[in-house]
Amino acid sequence: MALEPGRTVEELRELRELTGDENGAQRVAWTDTWARAREWLQAKVAPTGARHEVDEAGNQWFTLEGDSERALLIGGHMDSVPNGGWLDGCLNVLAGVEVLRRIAEDGRPPLTVRLVDWADEEGARFGRSLFGSSAAAGSMTDQDELRERRDADGVSLPDAIAAHGVDLDGALAARSRLENAAAYLELHIEQGPVLESLDRPLGVVLGTFGVERHLITWRGQAAHAGSTPMDKRRDALAGAAKLALEIRPIAAQVGDGAVCTSGGVVTKPGIVTSVVETAEQLLDQRHLDAAKLAELLRLAQEASERFAREEDVEVEWERIWSIEPIPFDAGLIELADAAITEVSGTSDRLPSGPLHDAAEVARAGVPTVMLFVQSLRGLSHTKLEDTKPEHIELSVQALDRLAAKAIERLA
Amino acid sequence: MALEPGRTVEELRELRELTGDENGAQRVAWTDTWARAREWLQAKVAPTGARHEVDEAGNQWFTLEGDSERALLIGGHMDSVPNGGWLDGCLNVLAGVEVLRRIAEDGRPPLTVRLVDWADEEGARFGRSLFGSSAAAGSMTDQDELRERRDADGVSLPDAIAAHGVDLDGALAARSRLENAAAYLELHIEQGPVLESLDRPLGVVLGTFGVERHLITWRGQAAHAGSTPMDKRRDALAGAAKLALEIRPIAAQVGDGAVCTSGGVVTKPGIVTSVVETAEQLLDQRHLDAAKLAELLRLAQEASERFAREEDVEVEWERIWSIEPIPFDAGLIELADAAITEVSGTSDRLPSGPLHDAAEVARAGVPTVMLFVQSLRGLSHTKLEDTKPEHIELSVQALDRLAAKAIERLA
Repeated sequence: MALEPGRTVEELRELRELTGDENGAQRVAWTDTWARAREWLQAKVAPTGARHEVDEAGNQWFTLEGDSERALLIGGHMDSVPNGGWLDGCLNVLAGVEVLRRIAEDGRPPLTVRLVDWADEEGARFGRSLFGSSAAAGSMTDQDELRERRDADGVSLPDAIAAHGVDLDGALAARSRLENAAAYLELHIEQGPVLESLDRPLGVVLGTFGVERHLITWRGQAAHAGSTPMDKRRDALAGAAKLALEIRPIAAQVGDGAVCTSGGVVTKPGIVTSVVETAEQLLDQRHLDAAKLAELLRLAQEASERFAREEDVEVEWERIWSIEPIPFDAGLIELADAAITEVSGTSDRLPSGPLHDAAEVARAGVPTVMLFVQSLRGLSHTKLEDTKPEHIELSVQALDRLAAKAIERLA
Repeated sequence: MALEPGRTVEELRELRELTGDENGAQRVAWTDTWARAREWLQAKVAPTGARHEVDEAGNQWFTLEGDSERALLIGGHMDSVPNGGWLDGCLNVLAGVEVLRRIAEDGRPPLTVRLVDWADEEGARFGRSLFGSSAAAGSMTDQDELRERRDADGVSLPDAIAAHGVDLDGALAARSRLENAAAYLELHIEQGPVLESLDRPLGVVLGTFGVERHLITWRGQAAHAGSTPMDKRRDALAGAAKLALEIRPIAAQVGDGAVCTSGGVVTKPGIVTSVVETAEQLLDQRHLDAAKLAELLRLAQEASERFAREEDVEVEWERIWSIEPIPFDAGLIELADAAITEVSGTSDRLPSGPLHDAAEVARAGVPTVMLFVQSLRGLSHTKLEDTKPEHIELSVQALDRLAAKAIERLA
């Protein structure tokens, strides 16, 4: 009723003025600019009467008490990458603020409603993303490694977060914040080109991709570019080149949104006068279905062994990182479909390639769903990141409808 | 008659003891170790009565006067790369010493015979190979650039060579040394696997390859590895990968010993989470025939444009360096064939992939030929470089026969 989606666009612009510069957003977590953004947020929410707290992991919570202790959570993150865009993370929070205002105006809700601004989603300063949400989800297990991390200026992670009242060893106590959570909703810009190519403002996110990330090392034989006949070569680059091309038909074969990326190749000795002796190739494979992700990996490994035989080189795989697919809640996906259809006439479903705080919450067992709003040219993590104002307004409306439906369902 | 090829093997070992260490040969040009090797050489040649001189470019000459001023030249280089092998360059010189001894023992030759130890063939310290031979050939045109070059310790090239009596601007005066040259002979290890794979100790070199060397830049679009569907990508690595594979059928199609090498690829941003935006690819193409070399280049450029269209990326070629093929003298090639056949029963002809001082001499118009002796495993520029002693002895015999035939032909 009192929802004013245009206000969200105005507040996003106000925040950009306050915490950005000519290079983009500068709300890097655990900095003064980030703290200033959070104080500004607190002042914006204050008129709703929501209770403000910061938890043991540095997450900022705004709570509207309801008839039940069971809580609907709406989340986002105020932090940005350096020279970031004006939407990534803070759109989620500010749309949530507008929904909170509407709910507060409607009177005491049947469920408790909480808005959360997660701490350090981006991991821009210390290379550890999803800090606050993983602590709250109880999946943070790398404290010992984090203790050693330092930023570019040599400041340690424990010192940096202590300056903002967070103790690394105490962060997991934030787990209690999810105890009464009945559902978690998050709006985010897509950061990809799918909705724009479909000419749709909004989409429902089915879950976050599972990821298999490997370093593949091809070993051949360095040999003089002038004195070594073509049929006497053992060219490591040939193996890497074949695999960089083969992952594309493999992705097509497995289908259902599979993506495979060879993000880089490092060649040694890497000089113009020598056949490549060693090629180190990065491979990233993603799928929403665990079995199909395993199939992507198996097919790529089989192909690599075939190429190694063809080229008389050696190939070795080393897993860098992996995560299982995290599907979102089927019931909430249906509610999100309905909410989007109400505000824009139709709804599409798509997976999320990037991870989000929502994935951590879902992993913790809280029924979760995300909405994506169209990104122009698929750009993010740059000041060129953009979304049409009318789409931002539609996204606020859709999040509000979804929140209303979730409260109705859960009450 | 008095030729003692076994003595060459012994002297090579003596030199290795004198100027090498556990990491290999250390006769880098313009160093004390190199100067010590040259003094040792001078002492070895002294008993022949040959006149010793060092020219304006630092080349070391040993002259046996003959009935005619016309001269037969035999050449090599005492300098090595750091941690080099025991044969590259000095085998050529020491085999020449043995031939000089045989000719001197035979009495005054009908032609003047000169052994030359070229200065700084490797260019290991300042990145400028063929220093002395290009000065003598009159093809050194980069004095202004060389003036600015510094070694890893910051010592300038002009200062380093001045310490060995060479003035950069005066080096071209060494041209006069080729004035009476009637033929130039050079023995070298093959530095490649061809003779070993043919199971032949020796081969005649047809000339040095022409080279086309390019930096090829592929430009696509960085995009998130998770959020960008496969059909929306503009992957710069795909262009580079296709070309790295395509140069092989192109080399086969042009044939006659064509070699093409993609020696390295640099990918940017080169991270696991992004489609490759820019791929910088090194390409080296070589052929003994200028028209076929041009064909190699044309086919690769056409293929790259086709790949750029297929992948919706941009491609740009920048020539780094090129040199025309330098064919050796047809008459001397026949004499070399005959000499090799006499000592080993058969003879093969092959092109030289690497450049050699002989190419500079040939470019200056002096009839030239080279002999290759088998390299084990094709290795050079490493302490693992090796050739069987019996093959070294055969190579000294072949060089001696070739010198005798050349003198007979030219007298």
